[in-house]
Amino acid sequence: MHLLLPGPTPIPKPVEQALLAAMTDHRGGAFETVQNRVLNGLAVLLGTDSQEHVAVLPASGTGGLEAAVQNLFHPNDRVLVVESGLFGRRFGEVAKAQQLKVDRMELTWGEALRPQAIMERIGAAPYRGVLVTHNETSTGVLNPIEELGGLMNQLPDPPLLVVDSISGVPAIPLTVQNGIDVIVAASQKGFMCPPGLAMIALSDRARSAVLVERAGRFYFDLWPYLKGQLPYTPAISLWYGLDAALQLLQQEGAEARLKRHQWLRDMVRAFGEAGGLEVLVPDHWASPTVTALGLPSSMNPSQFRRHLEQKGLQIAGGLGEWHHRVIRVGHVGAIDVGDLWAGLGLMAPYLPHPQQSLEAAMRVASIADQPRLEREEAL
Amino acid sequence: MHLLLPGPTPIPKPVEQALLAAMTDHRGGAFETVQNRVLNGLAVLLGTDSQEHVAVLPASGTGGLEAAVQNLFHPNDRVLVVESGLFGRRFGEVAKAQQLKVDRMELTWGEALRPQAIMERIGAAPYRGVLVTHNETSTGVLNPIEELGGLMNQLPDPPLLVVDSISGVPAIPLTVQNGIDVIVAASQKGFMCPPGLAMIALSDRARSAVLVERAGRFYFDLWPYLKGQLPYTPAISLWYGLDAALQLLQQEGAEARLKRHQWLRDMVRAFGEAGGLEVLVPDHWASPTVTALGLPSSMNPSQFRRHLEQKGLQIAGGLGEWHHRVIRVGHVGAIDVGDLWAGLGLMAPYLPHPQQSLEAAMRVASIADQPRLEREEAL
Repeated sequence: MHLLLPGPTPIPKPVEQALLAAMTDHRGGAFETVQNRVLNGLAVLLGTDSQEHVAVLPASGTGGLEAAVQNLFHPNDRVLVVESGLFGRRFGEVAKAQQLKVDRMELTWGEALRPQAIMERIGAAPYRGVLVTHNETSTGVLNPIEELGGLMNQLPDPPLLVVDSISGVPAIPLTVQNGIDVIVAASQKGFMCPPGLAMIALSDRARSAVLVERAGRFYFDLWPYLKGQLPYTPAISLWYGLDAALQLLQQEGAEARLKRHQWLRDMVRAFGEAGGLEVLVPDHWASPTVTALGLPSSMNPSQFRRHLEQKGLQIAGGLGEWHHRVIRVGHVGAIDVGDLWAGLGLMAPYLPHPQQSLEAAMRVASIADQPRLEREEAL
Repeated sequence: MHLLLPGPTPIPKPVEQALLAAMTDHRGGAFETVQNRVLNGLAVLLGTDSQEHVAVLPASGTGGLEAAVQNLFHPNDRVLVVESGLFGRRFGEVAKAQQLKVDRMELTWGEALRPQAIMERIGAAPYRGVLVTHNETSTGVLNPIEELGGLMNQLPDPPLLVVDSISGVPAIPLTVQNGIDVIVAASQKGFMCPPGLAMIALSDRARSAVLVERAGRFYFDLWPYLKGQLPYTPAISLWYGLDAALQLLQQEGAEARLKRHQWLRDMVRAFGEAGGLEVLVPDHWASPTVTALGLPSSMNPSQFRRHLEQKGLQIAGGLGEWHHRVIRVGHVGAIDVGDLWAGLGLMAPYLPHPQQSLEAAMRVASIADQPRLEREEAL
């Protein structure tokens, strides 16, 4: 099956091999080596120079969001949640469940947050935190988090900026620097691993703000992790996979990786537009990892996806407000231009303008000097 | 590396192969088949006839305990926690973190709970729940949960009996029947999978008691799961592994499985006793999945384990009160008598009476008609 999903994503061979590393005592020396290498690798990737600022939890990404909220905010702390789509809304639900006072800032679907508007909201109310989504998977919008962090960083005592980057980093580089305090990520997207691990990185400021005591927090208490312990049996095979994936990511480098994802995105957008689909997000907000495309009323999204699945391709459907007319094409992780062609080739015959769609994709694909992920070599 | 740990445990070949099933859309039809088969298999194994009484969470076992507590008890609900060792104590900590009123019943290390004593405590105070450990991994004690359930079941409106069976079921059969309301399990012990999944099964009564609203609960809200949804990206590869493992478990059958584990236990106990170690738990309480052995003062447990690791064997150290003089030999999951011999053979030379230890193990091993797990065949 070919996968063009915004996660889970294909597993590269070296990661697959690593996943099968024999089980071992997670409190023994052999695993400690892997643990240290993974935490160090993550620390570097997420822009902190210390293992004591990162944690890898046995949970899905949403568990990581709950951990961030439980560790940084008390009940009744007031936070601003920017809802740029379904996942922004979920972040708000996580915060509400932890009894925070949540002010919502709801964006129009398909639009990115405007840093200046958030600065105005911050100026008007004493927020302890601002909760935002880096890459909104439901709309395919990339939010300008670094710009927001830069602005907030100029305030004397800014709220903590907590970023859901589950479908962003490391495909889209982001670091806990320059006003960005917390990054939450997950294993099954840009990290090219199976789902099951949530990652958290903390800025110096965020680490100092981790609560000593907090009602309702146990499983997601970050303190043991920040002290280098793994309090509950870690998902060992996924750690081995992540270890191998971090080596691949390091070999590729952040800049080449971003360029690769942007290139895949540009192919999908050119393909969709020329093929007669509606490209729902303008260029300057378009996510490098997932693209939402509106179908003409003559096409039924679920039928379209069923046909594709029979041909051997999985793409994602629309979510929330875009449930009825939208498909989402994921292009994140261990995807190369060949994988994308497999999917575009299978999709094209169903589009209003099949030939134009493929021609447009080819024009983008043929741009020279495009990066390719080395993903076959054994480690 | 040979593993005689109380988890993680060796992964049988068919499970290993299943773990590498290609990634797929977890909201698509192919995964739904696996999801249904796994939930059905678990429901049967844990003694409920309905998928709507079981949940598989992306978490370690401790996450499963937190889920049980968050879904069944409000803050300030009064519960009795039976602390039969380190893991019983942890269950109490989980409950306290969720703001329950926790009454502790602390047992002497190495002893099992006495159902009658618990009945007396229940008679004296209005408890909403009784939280107990089925198989206490820190001491190697099997608690008589079924007897306790039977007694509680005779009360007109008994507290919910919530059982941490993370190192018990399915090696030691247990079902949500006859007064047992909740079973929490995990993937990395008797289920022969890598760590990363927690399982929960609920009796009819427990399912009716799952709270509609509960402050502080989001990630572990069981409702979506009980309605057949997977609200957050499931640990797909582990689900595939669990699917394969459930087939192996089904082929073996509960009775043969228990017999196999008891037989391995009896070998270890005979080996230890004849070899000059202290068998710390009397026969009638001895766990079929893990055995704690006291070393003579001439032997240093950590040095002993280091030597064994160099020879290619991992066993577990003592925990808590038994930290300084105890080793723990795990014999749970996909372990056969050959695996056990590998470990016993490597341990014997360090024991006070090497030859006697091996002779004693051989006497137990040679008992005819012992069951063996089929674990090599491809599915």
